Amino acid sequence: MINVGIVGATGYVGVECIRLLLRHKEVCIKILASHTFVGQKISKIYPTLKGILDLECEALNIDILAKECDVVITALPHGASMEVIPALLEKGVKVIDASGDFRYNDAKIYEQWYKVTHTAPELLKTAVYGLCELNREKIKKTNFVANPGCYPTCSILGLAPLMDSDYINKESIIIDSVSGVSGSGRKADLANTVCELSENFKPYGVTNHRHTSEIEQELSLLAGTEVKVSFTPHLAPFKRGMLSTIYVNLTKETDTDELVSLYKEFYKDDFFVRILDTGVMPEVKFVAGSNFVDINLVVDKRLNRVIIMSCQDNLCKGAAGQIVQNLNLMCGFDENEALNFPGAYL
Amino acid sequence: MINVGIVGATGYVGVECIRLLLRHKEVCIKILASHTFVGQKISKIYPTLKGILDLECEALNIDILAKECDVVITALPHGASMEVIPALLEKGVKVIDASGDFRYNDAKIYEQWYKVTHTAPELLKTAVYGLCELNREKIKKTNFVANPGCYPTCSILGLAPLMDSDYINKESIIIDSVSGVSGSGRKADLANTVCELSENFKPYGVTNHRHTSEIEQELSLLAGTEVKVSFTPHLAPFKRGMLSTIYVNLTKETDTDELVSLYKEFYKDDFFVRILDTGVMPEVKFVAGSNFVDINLVVDKRLNRVIIMSCQDNLCKGAAGQIVQNLNLMCGFDENEALNFPGAYL
Amino acid sequence: MINVGIVGATGYVGVECIRLLLRHKEVCIKILASHTFVGQKISKIYPTLKGILDLECEALNIDILAKECDVVITALPHGASMEVIPALLEKGVKVIDASGDFRYNDAKIYEQWYKVTHTAPELLKTAVYGLCELNREKIKKTNFVANPGCYPTCSILGLAPLMDSDYINKESIIIDSVSGVSGSGRKADLANTVCELSENFKPYGVTNHRHTSEIEQELSLLAGTEVKVSFTPHLAPFKRGMLSTIYVNLTKETDTDELVSLYKEFYKDDFFVRILDTGVMPEVKFVAGSNFVDINLVVDKRLNRVIIMSCQDNLCKGAAGQIVQNLNLMCGFDENEALNFPGAYL
Amino acid sequence: MINVGIVGATGYVGVECIRLLLRHKEVCIKILASHTFVGQKISKIYPTLKGILDLECEALNIDILAKECDVVITALPHGASMEVIPALLEKGVKVIDASGDFRYNDAKIYEQWYKVTHTAPELLKTAVYGLCELNREKIKKTNFVANPGCYPTCSILGLAPLMDSDYINKESIIIDSVSGVSGSGRKADLANTVCELSENFKPYGVTNHRHTSEIEQELSLLAGTEVKVSFTPHLAPFKRGMLSTIYVNLTKETDTDELVSLYKEFYKDDFFVRILDTGVMPEVKFVAGSNFVDINLVVDKRLNRVIIMSCQDNLCKGAAGQIVQNLNLMCGFDENEALNFPGAYL
Repeated sequence: MINVGIVGATGYVGVECIRLLLRHKEVCIKILASHTFVGQKISKIYPTLKGILDLECEALNIDILAKECDVVITALPHGASMEVIPALLEKGVKVIDASGDFRYNDAKIYEQWYKVTHTAPELLKTAVYGLCELNREKIKKTNFVANPGCYPTCSILGLAPLMDSDYINKESIIIDSVSGVSGSGRKADLANTVCELSENFKPYGVTNHRHTSEIEQELSLLAGTEVKVSFTPHLAPFKRGMLSTIYVNLTKETDTDELVSLYKEFYKDDFFVRILDTGVMPEVKFVAGSNFVDINLVVDKRLNRVIIMSCQDNLCKGAAGQIVQNLNLMCGFDENEALNFPGAYL
Repeated sequence: MINVGIVGATGYVGVECIRLLLRHKEVCIKILASHTFVGQKISKIYPTLKGILDLECEALNIDILAKECDVVITALPHGASMEVIPALLEKGVKVIDASGDFRYNDAKIYEQWYKVTHTAPELLKTAVYGLCELNREKIKKTNFVANPGCYPTCSILGLAPLMDSDYINKESIIIDSVSGVSGSGRKADLANTVCELSENFKPYGVTNHRHTSEIEQELSLLAGTEVKVSFTPHLAPFKRGMLSTIYVNLTKETDTDELVSLYKEFYKDDFFVRILDTGVMPEVKFVAGSNFVDINLVVDKRLNRVIIMSCQDNLCKGAAGQIVQNLNLMCGFDENEALNFPGAYL
Repeated sequence: MINVGIVGATGYVGVECIRLLLRHKEVCIKILASHTFVGQKISKIYPTLKGILDLECEALNIDILAKECDVVITALPHGASMEVIPALLEKGVKVIDASGDFRYNDAKIYEQWYKVTHTAPELLKTAVYGLCELNREKIKKTNFVANPGCYPTCSILGLAPLMDSDYINKESIIIDSVSGVSGSGRKADLANTVCELSENFKPYGVTNHRHTSEIEQELSLLAGTEVKVSFTPHLAPFKRGMLSTIYVNLTKETDTDELVSLYKEFYKDDFFVRILDTGVMPEVKFVAGSNFVDINLVVDKRLNRVIIMSCQDNLCKGAAGQIVQNLNLMCGFDENEALNFPGAYL
Repeated sequence: MINVGIVGATGYVGVECIRLLLRHKEVCIKILASHTFVGQKISKIYPTLKGILDLECEALNIDILAKECDVVITALPHGASMEVIPALLEKGVKVIDASGDFRYNDAKIYEQWYKVTHTAPELLKTAVYGLCELNREKIKKTNFVANPGCYPTCSILGLAPLMDSDYINKESIIIDSVSGVSGSGRKADLANTVCELSENFKPYGVTNHRHTSEIEQELSLLAGTEVKVSFTPHLAPFKRGMLSTIYVNLTKETDTDELVSLYKEFYKDDFFVRILDTGVMPEVKFVAGSNFVDINLVVDKRLNRVIIMSCQDNLCKGAAGQIVQNLNLMCGFDENEALNFPGAYL
């Protein structure tokens, strides 16, 4: 049994961590740190939790966190994480960070896309990029995981089996993604109100969304060569979920079955990646609420292009679910613990 | 460890039973019987389940069900349940029925409101009305539970603490309820399509909804006198959840605090009934996905009337959750087993 | 052709006035006054209007409004209206006010429910309560209309034919209402975001919503005696529309047909009030986007109670549509001008 | 004043034609033909229309249609249109067909993608492809318009200004589109119910959607060379609207401003095509309910690729709106008549 603290516990990623950790046999949620809600019960902020978890939120205190917790999850905005994490690590706590602060190998790339100065660049080497299916062994050995972004998780897993192959033109990758609104976090934003967003659909961050750089870094590592991609996120009127439709030009003749086999082989030991049956395309509904990533693809022989669809819950596998998966790996628990359940369908 | 069979497994109540029973430490889902999907994997019909439960649906076979299962859940339309259950009971299986067929003490009332002839009226005496908070001890001793309707569960729990009191005028009860669309079941119905129902809101069954008679039967039992109520259901554009706003004239002076205390005392041993804090009114979001019923009330001293709000997930406490709660009671398990978790909030 | 100014033009009521007035043969939208968006084109704030109305918002200036406009619509929060209107009226402009400031006959009632001091109580006698179907002749002769609240319009029209009759117990009126989110206005409110409100449903203002007092004032006038009502508003996850389900105890024997006939007779000259066919209950979808109020009722002979359902678009007949209807009456235009069209269904 | 008949009047395209034609100064809706609802008032099927248009639906009768109508709109499924239209044309009526039956220059292409035999291939030469902005002069002179598909209208208008240029690699076009549910038509389809589709998002018709061939035909004509495209439609949980995100590789250096200028010049005389301001991306909300197509683009200099976003209401400009626009052109009315209004925003 370990003790876990969540810093930034009252945001959507924080409360999703709580939902998942409440199922965890080996975890006690010990500390919920919050900036805004100090002294309030988490069950007052999220009345779903009433009678289940009535813990009070407390102010961030590194010493107490380090003393009482074995693992600390930082669910803070980028920029805030790097102010907190160095001290936590120094005190020997395991840390999983949900922000973008420590996902990059090169501080310059981070600074260029995030428009802030990195205050702890020396830790970039220490942090392991926590895409569990790709970096499992490294994660098992580290004390510090940078949990991947939601779009990157979805997109990279959709492309990984092909990146090191000679099937594709690596300059031709186009990722068209759609996210639910929870990706924007919990905030009073006019643009996210029912009146403004229900019955709406819109692109945003066209050509300049930060996750582009994270996707490119990881795809480049997989490919062994620099890869650049078009990435266009859109916002749709649902709460949870994310689907990427990915277009890649093929460089040799192949067909759907062949590439599906390649994907199945690549992910054969990965419980949370499901390659769907022929003709069944991923849908947000199939994964919402769960840690699964559903993938399928179609080779368009007419155009010699493959269309890959990758779908996940942005809050779960795209954030809190992968955090718990990383926690399991870091602590030597069963990788699926607390995550081995389906979405609710309704 | 017991084996459970679900008849009518592919409807929304069936699949919600599956979702819950997958969490259950003492239950193995053994048989999924379906009329329409014989030979198909449940995970093909509900791809959420892929990799978690890939059991094939089979045709209804009483002998096999009785031989292999300790408990059978019948999630069938009314009329169909009474054709199946007598044979199951005869073979000694425990049965929990989700339909209205065995909820009545008097077959005539059933026939009058359901417009069908009851073919097994002798079993009405055997069946225990499975509103766990009110009939817990009877449920523990029975082999046959008639699981309550969704509106009745929500409304009866909202009124129960007052029914045997002298606070209220029992002729003045008005129940105005709103349900999510899943209450209509899984079917290709034009009226339930996104184009027809999103951004819509409507009453239905005004003065003649079947659940009126079920509510009246149980409130009369609690009151020790015949009680009739106005009950008006409405359909709102959400999937899960139900809220009843209940109006009752008071017969003596009281105030909000006094009645809240009475409710807290009445439900002090009932984990799934939460009386909310002063000023916090129930919301569908607080209970959706969970087995909780949230209740609060306000005494309007200006009018000498109490307004009670009672809120639950129609599919969970209003159907499958209470089925599992009943199963726990019937089988001697912890009453909260597999149900002791919060809704997902998002 | 007249010139119209809208003060508070960028809120949802303001922009709905624009939508309707753009259809008006006799109206030129001359001035859009805004506090927040001075100097910005209305089509930048509402890009729907691009190419149709690219007028710039300007700061509120009473002199310019009075000089350039024949009619000024004030779509301001309560409290703000009463600061602006006296000067406008003094300069001889016709005014239609969307707020609650001038709807009351008695400043004390206003102050008690709105918790502010009325700064222009002398104008309460001048203002005509602009419920067109009930006060048509007065509206034709006035320069100053207090446009009714959304819940009051819906509820009063649902009850008006019975208030002066001996059919009902006037102490038994219960109004259970549901509104779409646009009723909260255009604002960055966490509680109204998709993540918090989609798939949600909730009561609010239980026993103390301001519109209670407005409803009571008008029903009392119709009844010729003091009438008090229970009024409970709820918020549902749709944008536009409102439905009131109204319960009233009957004092003599009657039936649905008789009361429906009474309603049809009462509203026989009112184009925007539609008494639906037997068995067809009002739905938000039938009126959303239009100025219609749909009404139907059922007499429950079992309980000697009538259930009346009244349904409208809260932004249209409940606000901007009635504003335009009032403008038509005040200016001698055809009452239906710019309003004689159906909702879009989809 | 002309008389118009609508065949297939009770589908969503039919009722949207009604909504628009009710605004039309020169049109009388004379005949509503329906297969399923003969003898029923259209206002019973769509209660929005009660009191506005209470016309009864009648069975399809070519002779009566031809005798009483100047223009007939056929809003029928593909396959059904080609059975009806030859007789109508023979009798001298103007016809606008909403189906895919007459959009193709080559019957073989139609038969290959629609999997049916064309029974009136000789009329393919007669039919004018009714994309008003591109074929305005031809439409003015014809009696028979094949109204374009929704995805084609949106996608072709998004690409047209570039097709005849040397800016782009015409083999690199990728069109990723999202449609609201009304695109599936009015039908009792489980997959379109609120329970199955709310909070969902999914691709469909990947690499084989029929509209691919229609888009390719028209882009090839514009380019003067054969063009093939990747086209992937998705379904999102809203009712009306459609957005295409289009990716094209550039063949020479350019920037956003230059291409925006080119688009503005290309569409300078087209009222319904709005090129948005720099940095303002199209949103479904901006066009829903109106006949506008909103377009904007971003040149990604990093990748030498242009991302074009094109957005419309699938039922309006994508179907009924363009039908009315075509009717205006064919009959010599003002092209904007009945269409010159903004969406409702809410």
